[in-house]
Amino acid sequence: MPTLLQIDFPFSGPFGEAMHQAMRSLAESIIEEPGLIWKIWTENAATQEAGGVYLFSDATAAQHYLEMHSARLTASGVTGIRAKLFSVNTPLSMICKGPIQ
Amino acid sequence: MPTLLQIDFPFSGPFGEAMHQAMRSLAESIIEEPGLIWKIWTENAATQEAGGVYLFSDATAAQHYLEMHSARLTASGVTGIRAKLFSVNTPLSMICKGPIQ
Repeated sequence: MPTLLQIDFPFSGPFGEAMHQAMRSLAESIIEEPGLIWKIWTENAATQEAGGVYLFSDATAAQHYLEMHSARLTASGVTGIRAKLFSVNTPLSMICKGPIQ
Repeated sequence: MPTLLQIDFPFSGPFGEAMHQAMRSLAESIIEEPGLIWKIWTENAATQEAGGVYLFSDATAAQHYLEMHSARLTASGVTGIRAKLFSVNTPLSMICKGPIQ
């Protein structure tokens, strides 16, 4: 069952291309995580927030990643992490061209 | 600039196939919304929540949809809506196979 993970948290930057440069190595490691299908990196310089939306192949992989990543964010000084795990409603998402497969 | 919208809210069902049946017509209308590229429908029966993750072609379209959809959810009795708009960090998302194009 595909599982979606939403994470967001207060973030003071870097944003945009500077974020890309700072986090390229991290991104290259994240795509190798077990069960990860994709991640979209999110950022909002106006509200000083960042995060990600992830699709995993199953709930166990998503939960395991969330625990590891939350610990990593906390260790880097991030506080106020909000994370939610959801199942995907496949037929409704298919109607709306959702990239779930 | 692609813009991601996260929405979630308390929800007591229906979930799964019953949700599909109840909301198929709504999904067919949502994919026609201006600027929408895709929507993934999210649900969590255990935590009694539902929502969606949307990708729009630009921030203006995302903001316009959010205002319309929030009013529609509120009119249907939904309270406690949490919505966040984010820019997409394109190069980091590309590394992580993010479906942003």
